[in-house]
Amino acid sequence: MENLIHSFLMIGQSNMAGRGFIRDVKPIYDEQIRMLVNGRWQTMSEPMNFDRPTSGVSLAASFAGTWRLNNENQQIGLIPCADGGSSLDDWAVGGVLYENAVFQTKLAQRTSSLTGILWHQGENDSFACRSETYYDKLAVIIAALRQELEAPDIPFITGGLGDFLSTGRYGKYFTEYKSVNRELLRFANTNPNAYFVSAAELTANPDGLHFDALSLRKFGIRYFEAFKHQKNVPGPITGENELINTIQDRPFTKNEKASLLEISFGLGNLSLEDFENQLSTITAFDS
Amino acid sequence: MENLIHSFLMIGQSNMAGRGFIRDVKPIYDEQIRMLVNGRWQTMSEPMNFDRPTSGVSLAASFAGTWRLNNENQQIGLIPCADGGSSLDDWAVGGVLYENAVFQTKLAQRTSSLTGILWHQGENDSFACRSETYYDKLAVIIAALRQELEAPDIPFITGGLGDFLSTGRYGKYFTEYKSVNRELLRFANTNPNAYFVSAAELTANPDGLHFDALSLRKFGIRYFEAFKHQKNVPGPITGENELINTIQDRPFTKNEKASLLEISFGLGNLSLEDFENQLSTITAFDS
Repeated sequence: MENLIHSFLMIGQSNMAGRGFIRDVKPIYDEQIRMLVNGRWQTMSEPMNFDRPTSGVSLAASFAGTWRLNNENQQIGLIPCADGGSSLDDWAVGGVLYENAVFQTKLAQRTSSLTGILWHQGENDSFACRSETYYDKLAVIIAALRQELEAPDIPFITGGLGDFLSTGRYGKYFTEYKSVNRELLRFANTNPNAYFVSAAELTANPDGLHFDALSLRKFGIRYFEAFKHQKNVPGPITGENELINTIQDRPFTKNEKASLLEISFGLGNLSLEDFENQLSTITAFDS
Repeated sequence: MENLIHSFLMIGQSNMAGRGFIRDVKPIYDEQIRMLVNGRWQTMSEPMNFDRPTSGVSLAASFAGTWRLNNENQQIGLIPCADGGSSLDDWAVGGVLYENAVFQTKLAQRTSSLTGILWHQGENDSFACRSETYYDKLAVIIAALRQELEAPDIPFITGGLGDFLSTGRYGKYFTEYKSVNRELLRFANTNPNAYFVSAAELTANPDGLHFDALSLRKFGIRYFEAFKHQKNVPGPITGENELINTIQDRPFTKNEKASLLEISFGLGNLSLEDFENQLSTITAFDS
């Protein structure tokens, strides 16, 4: 069987899982964007990395949306394995987070070709001198991951921690976030197929801790820029907002419209009568 | 390390994952009720088996709530592995659903003692003569599962399919649901440590397909009855509604109140100011 799905592992802590408020952005819903659930591919919807009840918009959604603009006839699959609040020690080889990520990716590889690794982590290594060992710990984890997944050369893309971290409600916990950013950049600059994406000008939820939904849309576009051109992305990209609109305003297919109605009905947000009426108005030839 | 957590595997299709509307019942939130996420234990919140965007209240929540009434000083851990729309063939040994369930349970067993298996499945085997092979297919899966998890004797509890199935919007697809129920009961009656729980008098969401939230609360109580007394539960239990109230009206501890506020804040449903004000009103000594 030809592997039609190009899959990407999502790994790290809460800002990879995503905590953007769903209501702040238009949905990205595309039958060609899949997510791994219980080892099977489902159409991606947000939240996709449901590690906590606060899970929301993730940067991986707009990453996938941008990927789709560049790969019109192909499918992308996201493998959500990020876990809120996790430190590099929590991601140590042999630990449950690491082993779960390896296992999920191997399930995904049965029906996809692993094409990249998306990493965002470091807030929980931004204090108590943890930044000093960040590079070495990360190197061990990524080397082991590449070996176990037989993926020595695929792009490993990491993003910077937000500059809002030091000023928010929890700011006192992130005294070393700039050091972590330096180590992430150094990792990208000293390892093959590793790239660093700047979080410059991105903003936070009121918690001063998590990127807001619009910023995550931008961040995903920057991650894709790094993936596509295999280079670091040192700051904002021209046209980020236009690209977000292009992705979010993509017309839904007939099937997608029907699925979105089914979801709304399944959540009890639409009566049976309204559901059936709206379903019947979806014309047969608009996809 | 002593295994303090008693864990239960949740397996089957959508009615085990749970599609009850969250807003229809009071939340069950108890620090001693945990759920496995990325191989780690988190305080259970609903939806806990997030297999689809329509995931909601699950029977496992009130199962755990009832378990807690009977085990005041112990922790219960739920391992959510159910997947919507899955047939027994989808659960075949070696397939991704089966392997994911085994893997997740093995991760859970690092820090818990596997104490039971909760099964609800069969809607997708209620047509095209699939019910005729239900017993044999289920027997193969459960035997393999018990062996792989080294759990030959723990209770395996299954529940009946709802009597609403034949009359709803999708009724034509479930011509054999009564046969599946007979096979589930026969499985319980002919296998050691296997029990059948009746779905009698339980009702559905407007889709006529998924148990509604209140019914799932009742169903979980019946599952616990089967677990506790190691016997089939042939119908409703006296006092189900009172038991639901007892579980749902349990006073939150200080930590639980703070966590619920954090979730509300994290979802953007509470301003920073309101969050901090409400957090400060939680007295120090009420847990």
